[in-house]
Amino acid sequence: MYKIINDPIYGFVSIGSEFILELVNHPIFLRLTRIRQMGCSSVVYPGAQHTRFSHALGAMHLMKSAIESLTRKGTKVSEEEKEAAMIAILLHDIGHGPFSHALEKILLNVHHEDLSLFLMHQLNAEMDGKLNMAIKMFTGEYPRQFFHQMVSSQLDMDRLDYLQRDCFFSGVIEGSVGASRIIKMLDVHQDEIVILEKGIYSIDRFLNARRMMYWQVYLHRTGLAAELMLQSLIKRAKYLLEKGHPLECDPDLRFFLEHSISKENFESDPKILDHYLQLDDFNIWTAIKAWRNSGDRVLEVLVDGILNRKIFECELSSEEINVQKIKSVNKSLREKNFSEEEIAYLSMHGKVTNAAYTSDKQNIKVKMKDGGILDISNASDLSNIEALTKIVTKFYLCQPKVVS
Amino acid sequence: MYKIINDPIYGFVSIGSEFILELVNHPIFLRLTRIRQMGCSSVVYPGAQHTRFSHALGAMHLMKSAIESLTRKGTKVSEEEKEAAMIAILLHDIGHGPFSHALEKILLNVHHEDLSLFLMHQLNAEMDGKLNMAIKMFTGEYPRQFFHQMVSSQLDMDRLDYLQRDCFFSGVIEGSVGASRIIKMLDVHQDEIVILEKGIYSIDRFLNARRMMYWQVYLHRTGLAAELMLQSLIKRAKYLLEKGHPLECDPDLRFFLEHSISKENFESDPKILDHYLQLDDFNIWTAIKAWRNSGDRVLEVLVDGILNRKIFECELSSEEINVQKIKSVNKSLREKNFSEEEIAYLSMHGKVTNAAYTSDKQNIKVKMKDGGILDISNASDLSNIEALTKIVTKFYLCQPKVVS
Amino acid sequence: MYKIINDPIYGFVSIGSEFILELVNHPIFLRLTRIRQMGCSSVVYPGAQHTRFSHALGAMHLMKSAIESLTRKGTKVSEEEKEAAMIAILLHDIGHGPFSHALEKILLNVHHEDLSLFLMHQLNAEMDGKLNMAIKMFTGEYPRQFFHQMVSSQLDMDRLDYLQRDCFFSGVIEGSVGASRIIKMLDVHQDEIVILEKGIYSIDRFLNARRMMYWQVYLHRTGLAAELMLQSLIKRAKYLLEKGHPLECDPDLRFFLEHSISKENFESDPKILDHYLQLDDFNIWTAIKAWRNSGDRVLEVLVDGILNRKIFECELSSEEINVQKIKSVNKSLREKNFSEEEIAYLSMHGKVTNAAYTSDKQNIKVKMKDGGILDISNASDLSNIEALTKIVTKFYLCQPKVVS
Amino acid sequence: MYKIINDPIYGFVSIGSEFILELVNHPIFLRLTRIRQMGCSSVVYPGAQHTRFSHALGAMHLMKSAIESLTRKGTKVSEEEKEAAMIAILLHDIGHGPFSHALEKILLNVHHEDLSLFLMHQLNAEMDGKLNMAIKMFTGEYPRQFFHQMVSSQLDMDRLDYLQRDCFFSGVIEGSVGASRIIKMLDVHQDEIVILEKGIYSIDRFLNARRMMYWQVYLHRTGLAAELMLQSLIKRAKYLLEKGHPLECDPDLRFFLEHSISKENFESDPKILDHYLQLDDFNIWTAIKAWRNSGDRVLEVLVDGILNRKIFECELSSEEINVQKIKSVNKSLREKNFSEEEIAYLSMHGKVTNAAYTSDKQNIKVKMKDGGILDISNASDLSNIEALTKIVTKFYLCQPKVVS
Repeated sequence: MYKIINDPIYGFVSIGSEFILELVNHPIFLRLTRIRQMGCSSVVYPGAQHTRFSHALGAMHLMKSAIESLTRKGTKVSEEEKEAAMIAILLHDIGHGPFSHALEKILLNVHHEDLSLFLMHQLNAEMDGKLNMAIKMFTGEYPRQFFHQMVSSQLDMDRLDYLQRDCFFSGVIEGSVGASRIIKMLDVHQDEIVILEKGIYSIDRFLNARRMMYWQVYLHRTGLAAELMLQSLIKRAKYLLEKGHPLECDPDLRFFLEHSISKENFESDPKILDHYLQLDDFNIWTAIKAWRNSGDRVLEVLVDGILNRKIFECELSSEEINVQKIKSVNKSLREKNFSEEEIAYLSMHGKVTNAAYTSDKQNIKVKMKDGGILDISNASDLSNIEALTKIVTKFYLCQPKVVS
Repeated sequence: MYKIINDPIYGFVSIGSEFILELVNHPIFLRLTRIRQMGCSSVVYPGAQHTRFSHALGAMHLMKSAIESLTRKGTKVSEEEKEAAMIAILLHDIGHGPFSHALEKILLNVHHEDLSLFLMHQLNAEMDGKLNMAIKMFTGEYPRQFFHQMVSSQLDMDRLDYLQRDCFFSGVIEGSVGASRIIKMLDVHQDEIVILEKGIYSIDRFLNARRMMYWQVYLHRTGLAAELMLQSLIKRAKYLLEKGHPLECDPDLRFFLEHSISKENFESDPKILDHYLQLDDFNIWTAIKAWRNSGDRVLEVLVDGILNRKIFECELSSEEINVQKIKSVNKSLREKNFSEEEIAYLSMHGKVTNAAYTSDKQNIKVKMKDGGILDISNASDLSNIEALTKIVTKFYLCQPKVVS
Repeated sequence: MYKIINDPIYGFVSIGSEFILELVNHPIFLRLTRIRQMGCSSVVYPGAQHTRFSHALGAMHLMKSAIESLTRKGTKVSEEEKEAAMIAILLHDIGHGPFSHALEKILLNVHHEDLSLFLMHQLNAEMDGKLNMAIKMFTGEYPRQFFHQMVSSQLDMDRLDYLQRDCFFSGVIEGSVGASRIIKMLDVHQDEIVILEKGIYSIDRFLNARRMMYWQVYLHRTGLAAELMLQSLIKRAKYLLEKGHPLECDPDLRFFLEHSISKENFESDPKILDHYLQLDDFNIWTAIKAWRNSGDRVLEVLVDGILNRKIFECELSSEEINVQKIKSVNKSLREKNFSEEEIAYLSMHGKVTNAAYTSDKQNIKVKMKDGGILDISNASDLSNIEALTKIVTKFYLCQPKVVS
Repeated sequence: MYKIINDPIYGFVSIGSEFILELVNHPIFLRLTRIRQMGCSSVVYPGAQHTRFSHALGAMHLMKSAIESLTRKGTKVSEEEKEAAMIAILLHDIGHGPFSHALEKILLNVHHEDLSLFLMHQLNAEMDGKLNMAIKMFTGEYPRQFFHQMVSSQLDMDRLDYLQRDCFFSGVIEGSVGASRIIKMLDVHQDEIVILEKGIYSIDRFLNARRMMYWQVYLHRTGLAAELMLQSLIKRAKYLLEKGHPLECDPDLRFFLEHSISKENFESDPKILDHYLQLDDFNIWTAIKAWRNSGDRVLEVLVDGILNRKIFECELSSEEINVQKIKSVNKSLREKNFSEEEIAYLSMHGKVTNAAYTSDKQNIKVKMKDGGILDISNASDLSNIEALTKIVTKFYLCQPKVVS
């Protein structure tokens, strides 16, 4: 339908080929226009309304730039490889469900990457194998590893786009990344992505920005509280339906609330996919609003909290939450006549880490001016890379405000 | 709940007082977090996901800056007036329904400004008259006219924010406005807003930007087509329900589909308000998805078009659409076995104007260096203000692609 | 010496080849690091300190992008042509002297484009004809006209860069251009540059920005006054030296103050070039400071005015300056005991036009979606192109403030 | 002369009062329009042409914003204090000489802050004591310490402006600071500046940006080499003049080349000030150009290097330079027939630190949400403040390229 799309971050994003255009206009992909990238973050950052659709197009745009940057430095890339790499990143998140990460593993027990791969195979079957190379790049089976690394690694186009995009829309400028500078500094060495020495400062900034986004946004305590509330709300709805409590709900969402779906079910029963493809943020919101008078007190507290921004109190701490504190919270809830069974949905504790943002993926490699290849933590005595990439665990205790 | 909000355009937006915070956290206002500012524009500009909530906060932020700009130049403004002006602009759009302008007068037969005023009175009653002054500023009854002008005029904070915000999120940089420069150039002369001579260039740019947004965005033919399709879709649903055709739908939306509501009904029956306050974009989206297998062929064409981006062809022309052309379109539809009655929902023609954006409001006044006050079109021989502000009418013919 | 240069506007500018690097590091080109782009504008816009050097690199960067944009759309461009086009634009201003346009035709009677061509031939001789193709593109002799058009036309890389750069450094955001969007919309039709229909809005904005820069910056009355003062100052110095009045001055500047140099002299006497290549803004500034106690009252008024920001009053008008007004100014100066001969340097009147910015070059062509080619003024009923491109003449009267 | 100045970073900078306008237009202050902020950095970053004048105005603008931010939070500031604080920061760098830090202590043996204070007293005498309070704020004698801290501390308006400005003009976006966010987070606690807890991330980013600018810009090895060359060049000129070697030079610069001036001389001999006030970057550049045929081989190497961008090789290392390496460099120079005495101007080694950027000033204090005051390194377990603020020493060896 369109060949060039306006993007507030990159100006114009070009759809590279007829085939990519066909994918972009496929209903499976268009579903991403109805799934917001940042789940519950808009409760804290009201500008963060951008969709998975925009992110996917943006990451594809960066992939194109990155490949052009590599070819300018002498790496040969065929037109077929270029298109495949663009498709691999375009579709990398196609499996995401409503509220992205926030409801992952809650609505159904399947990881979004498995769903993405599953949907890619669906599309591939429908399109006579034209996605073969893209799928290999996505899974890492394609021999030239740098393609996979640009799809999924410490410096992939996914995070270059999402950090930039999330920062842009949330207005947390401390998270700005400078993706275009990083891309200009990419090179290939022995089929692996490396960064030129001159780009070390850009990487340092990138890692800092990532750390900033992690603390200021992704694990912001109010956003985290909203996410925990939403998860409780869905779990409670599942519980009530199981108990036979009637709840208004559209049939597609109902299907997932009433069944426990594993990866295997998904693969064996095509009807599940039909239901899944109808799910997006809107089903959840409409259900939440419908449940405001559900007759279940717990559900109503959660619904009221989410709709009317009565976000639970959330304490974040470097140390494990004191058991006495939890007991005291639960006691207060009991005094408000919530039963033990109900309290489990209102008093939430656990831990979160930034692992998703740092990952155990291999470190970034730097190509020095003398041609040598160094791990980034050795490439510079300036960067405190260790500090920037370590996994941090935080413990939380989350509860209704009326309690505290 | 919060006092400072991140905004991707202004950085930080401060909530000015406890009372304003109370209003921002009121369910009636929070509803705006679920209504997107630009209706159907995201079909063309996928970044345009921002909400009425963000726009209202942004306009309030500009009002604060504008008042500070005026007081720096010597205009006395009391704290009470400042708060009232901020509230007036904060709430100016509170009456908007799902999809903002796109469904105005379709879902119910009441203008959004009437609804805004109605809701302000509701809030005022609830809050013991604390909105009295704000309401007077909104309606223009407050004696110092410049407050009303900053809420609603050629140069009000409403359009300064929405032009800037719509441009920012759509990525149409040709529409960027420079609101902060205009605000620094505002002054008051005999209780009316004027712009200092030095600010003429900023106004010129503002008027140009407005014109750009009008043609590139607000009346973009694909966006217009999507809007016409959505309107047809809702009209068709109303028609089907009237005919007794069953349609899945939540009770609040159903109420408006099954009743024809006027301003008077609204005022006489409090139940209508209860339903209205539950409406937002999500009801519409969930209904659209539910109607994909409604059994009505016309509704299904429209639903498929909107969900799967099969946007109708839309011709925009300076001259009236040739009757033969319309007949020919309708003939094609008849050949596809659509009845006359059905064709009315699929073949749409009419006219649009930029009147909403130019308006008949009085012209901008300029305060010259010598102290004289001139109409902007006389203040400068440089600006072709006439050309920039004239009302243009365009005629459209919109139809399914399969037809053409 | 360097291959990638930081540029505050484009981020990174890459030097495209070894040969271009050689040119950039040539003393003749490096001279441009000591000549500011905007002459006297910093008296009004203190940020406008950028040099011809940065502008030349920036224009080269845009040329590279533009050629890549064309080749993506199917136009074949050889590596040799690409380098030649980049060189042609890199060197297009190499002939500029101190204060760029402000002192053109004052210090010596040769147009800067003639000097640029002369210097290109110098470099070409030194470099064994490697500039042949670039020179042909510069002069328009190269058969494929679109190369010349990108060097010099209504939409050339020269003005795309300088408008953007002058706007960026002066802080006059109303002049921002969106060069990258325009470049993405360029195409070639029958060896001529055209703009795709989708780019019409960008062109509209570009023409508006150009008009803004013209009125707000290039012909700003205070900047104009400073320029007229500088011209008077240099003329007065020439006059004094001719009369035998001693003035401190370095030998290179002295040469041009004591001789009247034409294009022909330049070509016949190589010593003139040696002197010319030593000239830059610094000679002028140091001379001005040295002349603060020159003993000539007129010169001292001008020096004091320029050094200590006592800029003359400047009236700009659409109508010719009334003779009585000029007489009255001169009378006041006579009363301050300036002689007729002296008054000619202090009371300045004349006219200026925006012709340099609009030019008589052929109009921009638009390639419509249906493949047709239209003049931009016919391509759209939206743009008031005529108004944006017409030549406007203004009359000025400029005099010391003490007089008025 | 003007009341509002365009600034590319802040948009508009307002001159706050008639008296400040008088200061801005004073010849002593206008001299800063002829001194570039970043000395030799334009050899690496050609955009870095901005002047001390722009920086001073920018810092004043931030001071105004900062005071408004404090008063909004309840700190009382009188109009007189506000003006004094704005003046104190406006004039804080008024003593800087040509090339700012690059030639400090080379041209004359006085620190620029002493010169600034000396010139403030000059202006104060001329203006009947109207600078008394500003001077007290500058020196720290004014009782309310937060004023002095905003002029000079870890978080003063000086560095908030220069980091932002240097980053903007050099195009090193990794150094962007977010000054406006920091300013909004400032508060006063017991007469000292503190940052609100919510602002910790902005501080983290600020410290990171500062570190980036230090390594990428202020101590960039090519910029450092240019600075060392310029220092050698001036020292060599002094030496030659002392030996009686004739050198073209204007009388003001000559005075400082021929005399060794201390702070005491300055205070006792008013003629020195007259000479000093004539010095700016232009004298140096004109002298350098004049010395290209000075007859002294060492001076000519340095002049050619600076004018024609033949910047010396510069090795930067964390460890002391090996003596053998220095000897080997010197041997190569001897083989090119440079004498020992001459080699001292061409082979330069020593050390540099980032101390100027980190300083021993007391740490930033944070006001926690609970009202407590913590040192920033204790306020957060997230920030690696220690690493960001430690003083790092680097050793350099700098030599002509022909040698290596």
